[in-house]
Amino acid sequence: MMITKESLEHFTSQVFEKMGCSNEHAQLAANVLLKADLRGIDSHGVARLSGYVRLWEKQRINTSPQFKIEHETLTTATLNADRALGLVSAPYGMDIAIEKAKTYGCGFTSIINSNHFGIAAYHAMKALPHDMIGIAMTNASPLVAPTHSTQRMLGTNPMCYVFPAHSHQPVIVDMATSAAANGKLEIAQRTGKAVPVGWVQTKEGSETMDANALKNGGSLLPLGSSVANGSHKGYALSSVVDIFCGVLGGANYGIWVPPFVAFLEPLSNLPGQGLGHFVGAIRVDAFRPAKEFKRTMDQWIESFQNADRKNQDQPIIIPGEPEYNEEQIRSKEGIPLHESVVLDLMQLAEKFGLHFNN
Amino acid sequence: MMITKESLEHFTSQVFEKMGCSNEHAQLAANVLLKADLRGIDSHGVARLSGYVRLWEKQRINTSPQFKIEHETLTTATLNADRALGLVSAPYGMDIAIEKAKTYGCGFTSIINSNHFGIAAYHAMKALPHDMIGIAMTNASPLVAPTHSTQRMLGTNPMCYVFPAHSHQPVIVDMATSAAANGKLEIAQRTGKAVPVGWVQTKEGSETMDANALKNGGSLLPLGSSVANGSHKGYALSSVVDIFCGVLGGANYGIWVPPFVAFLEPLSNLPGQGLGHFVGAIRVDAFRPAKEFKRTMDQWIESFQNADRKNQDQPIIIPGEPEYNEEQIRSKEGIPLHESVVLDLMQLAEKFGLHFNN
Repeated sequence: MMITKESLEHFTSQVFEKMGCSNEHAQLAANVLLKADLRGIDSHGVARLSGYVRLWEKQRINTSPQFKIEHETLTTATLNADRALGLVSAPYGMDIAIEKAKTYGCGFTSIINSNHFGIAAYHAMKALPHDMIGIAMTNASPLVAPTHSTQRMLGTNPMCYVFPAHSHQPVIVDMATSAAANGKLEIAQRTGKAVPVGWVQTKEGSETMDANALKNGGSLLPLGSSVANGSHKGYALSSVVDIFCGVLGGANYGIWVPPFVAFLEPLSNLPGQGLGHFVGAIRVDAFRPAKEFKRTMDQWIESFQNADRKNQDQPIIIPGEPEYNEEQIRSKEGIPLHESVVLDLMQLAEKFGLHFNN
Repeated sequence: MMITKESLEHFTSQVFEKMGCSNEHAQLAANVLLKADLRGIDSHGVARLSGYVRLWEKQRINTSPQFKIEHETLTTATLNADRALGLVSAPYGMDIAIEKAKTYGCGFTSIINSNHFGIAAYHAMKALPHDMIGIAMTNASPLVAPTHSTQRMLGTNPMCYVFPAHSHQPVIVDMATSAAANGKLEIAQRTGKAVPVGWVQTKEGSETMDANALKNGGSLLPLGSSVANGSHKGYALSSVVDIFCGVLGGANYGIWVPPFVAFLEPLSNLPGQGLGHFVGAIRVDAFRPAKEFKRTMDQWIESFQNADRKNQDQPIIIPGEPEYNEEQIRSKEGIPLHESVVLDLMQLAEKFGLHFNN
């Protein structure tokens, strides 16, 4: 099924309002989810809407949060999100960082007591119109085992960095620090296909191509996949994200990060509050004139686009380019929804007495 | 051969003085190199000393630099290193970042017109006594091909993040963004051993286990190694480092980063000045009381040390732990030098009329 961005965003926003979000929060949350669907990150768009609803039903998401700055300096803030949707708290925290960066050169916000924030790129990209570098990270419920371990200790913990350019689209790095994102594994599960060695290990820590290994007590592998190919680096990067997002402001970290799925309860004796995000903005003209920086970014991009190809048919990809291209197409042609997602949304429509334009 | 830290540092410092460094710069540069040797990063210690000498002989390193801040805000600075040793300019830039962080919460310095800076961890670790998170990155001469490319476009571009703890040693992430550091490949070349698939590709972009493939026109692979296992993520991370270090302040980037080896000339029509570093410091008490943060870091570390093991004999490693342990041993027992390094140092002793205590 194809649906226009406008219809899907309108429906999504109505669902958030039915959950008790203010009109402003509902529109923002819907906008964040739709950005994922437009950019082709289907795992982080409306496919997750019913998941947020279930967390709200379990009272793990507060749809009328009172945001509170718990700690602050000229360039930093720790924001207690009061169990809000991360879809709402992260843009709010990013606005704080941007305001501080305007005056002082850079700004960073640690957001605690929050929930899943959608795609990191949405938040980091808020820096772009201000000619700032944007940074966004979040920790997430544990699925990834450190090198030499069989235990799920870390989330897929994404790192996102965005850099404005002049004539070209910005460079947007938004990546899980695991070898493969969980969404890719889920697709393989649905289609019954084998996955490459290096994505997941069994409960005992053995190599496997079984997409269901994660469900059966296994774990995702860090970027690098194996000891020989540097999985300790993926583990270390994921740790950096966990420390910035969990430890720095006082959210949960490691095994204690609350699960996204509502059927799993958070552990008891939590060391922190909710899950955590870390967002930041750095003015490029704090280092050199913005126009110079952005023109040099254009040259950087062109030099990589022109790099020697392994196969003539496969261009070198600039980070963020495939998502930008997808956004152009889907903005015009509409967003394709998987059958199971359509069903999910129709059930939400029924639950809340809404009309889903199927 | 075993040598004490003190003798080796004294000798190294004398060599830098003979190159024209001030006493202060010579001691600092020697201290940075020795830190690598103590921590077991032999590829970045005195093994490189003769390389710096050769660059100086070619007048690509200026041993009496005039540092100049070209651009500055309350929290940021762009430092023109005047072709200094990165061993000297990076600690200087880090001191600027730390001073700014003391007053404003965080501080960042972009260092341009510089040279190889040794191990990133030395610079980032300067933040630790101030209860700050330390960040250090550098770009480097191109050896790594982007995903789908056969061209060396990026250096091994390390990222380093350090986090202070209370009773435990700090967490220190210092990693090349390639699957394997060049030093590891060089060891395999010396010993004639095959390397794992995923470290390097041939000139044509094919898989290989030949350690000499790099010498024969091939390239190192980004972290992730293959398309299936996420090499686009390693490529993206390396790009982040290249943009922060090269583009942000106005140093060279990509293929134009000047080679470390003196027998390769820099390309003509350089778009920037020298190579670039990016260093920064963030006060932890800008987000929560430092004692709270550091005690939580202790708990974070302990939870990872206690993670389920794949093999009972192989503990889970905390980033920075092996290097710290090596430093304890080598500080007591001395630093083991490879025969070829001893020879190299003896030749330097002869060149400069110094005594090398063999």
